[in-house]
Amino acid sequence: MSNKIQLGPQDIIFPVPAALVVTGTFENPNILTVAWIGMMSSNPHIIGISIDIHRYSYELINSNKQFSVNIPSSENYIKTDFCGIYSGRNVNKFKETRFTPIKSINIEPPIIQECPFNMECIVVNELSFKNYHAFFGEIIETHIDSDKLDAAKSNKIDISKVDPLVYIATIREYWSIGNKLGNSFNAGKKLKK
Amino acid sequence: MSNKIQLGPQDIIFPVPAALVVTGTFENPNILTVAWIGMMSSNPHIIGISIDIHRYSYELINSNKQFSVNIPSSENYIKTDFCGIYSGRNVNKFKETRFTPIKSINIEPPIIQECPFNMECIVVNELSFKNYHAFFGEIIETHIDSDKLDAAKSNKIDISKVDPLVYIATIREYWSIGNKLGNSFNAGKKLKK
Repeated sequence: MSNKIQLGPQDIIFPVPAALVVTGTFENPNILTVAWIGMMSSNPHIIGISIDIHRYSYELINSNKQFSVNIPSSENYIKTDFCGIYSGRNVNKFKETRFTPIKSINIEPPIIQECPFNMECIVVNELSFKNYHAFFGEIIETHIDSDKLDAAKSNKIDISKVDPLVYIATIREYWSIGNKLGNSFNAGKKLKK
Repeated sequence: MSNKIQLGPQDIIFPVPAALVVTGTFENPNILTVAWIGMMSSNPHIIGISIDIHRYSYELINSNKQFSVNIPSSENYIKTDFCGIYSGRNVNKFKETRFTPIKSINIEPPIIQECPFNMECIVVNELSFKNYHAFFGEIIETHIDSDKLDAAKSNKIDISKVDPLVYIATIREYWSIGNKLGNSFNAGKKLKK
């Protein structure tokens, strides 16, 4: 039996996406790396993201209350990290990373071509926490690269092809995924007598 | 260049924790597997979790507005899945999984011994989304197994020892982590000219 050590109040959480959130417009977009993210409802489809209010993206998201969420593959962890270090006030992040903006169908901010999975979101709720502001967006469209689908099952995403980047927040480490262990709403039935 | 295919509004998100949320009291606790989770503020330390209002855990969390978040290791994916399939109205999940409750320091619900990282939370905000209800908890204490710390650096968590379970929501797959790729707020500096 291992002993528990207390670390005090901490914002450590893992695993999370290092999501690339795009705000602004197709002509003037910005990218911010956001680990403070989580699905908050399945019906309607609501995703929450939280941004430091001193960030340029906080200004941009307030201009049109729209954002896209783009999930990077592990191969793009350096570009992903770049978008979290520097400010869009001083740097054109699409230009510096060579990420390609694609027009969204329903919102002004573009999605990122090089990210295999993308969501278009419209803000429907907000909460303020001192230096952080949480935006809750309704997901009105999602996009997947056609070559990341399982050939055997139509529209089923093949996660090994997506190879999503795994972020360990506050501990500040990027990891890849390893092996598939099992299927949910299924594996646990083995325990039932 | 790959083509994007639209999947419509979806609640697909990855990677996320399959967190074990404990509600109720030390004498009568329940465990629910929660993938709708995300850090929402670093100062104060706020974590958001969202629960289907038909769940037993929704009743329990409303009884004292407290919960613990417990991050499982990959080896416990079957027990983790069990806690998401069955209802605490009919099943004693601590008994069936043989997870061990440990008394929290500040809240009524226990933490789970077999989960290497644990958070004690008190609800400070709430939002309703039709069938889902989001609770925002201030993290007032965190716990880590002493044998999951990096021997070389005091209180630095060694993620390879934690071996956190990775969940791919809606696609319904459990994965392990793979390899460390780099450090955040650092790797991206390579792109800066």
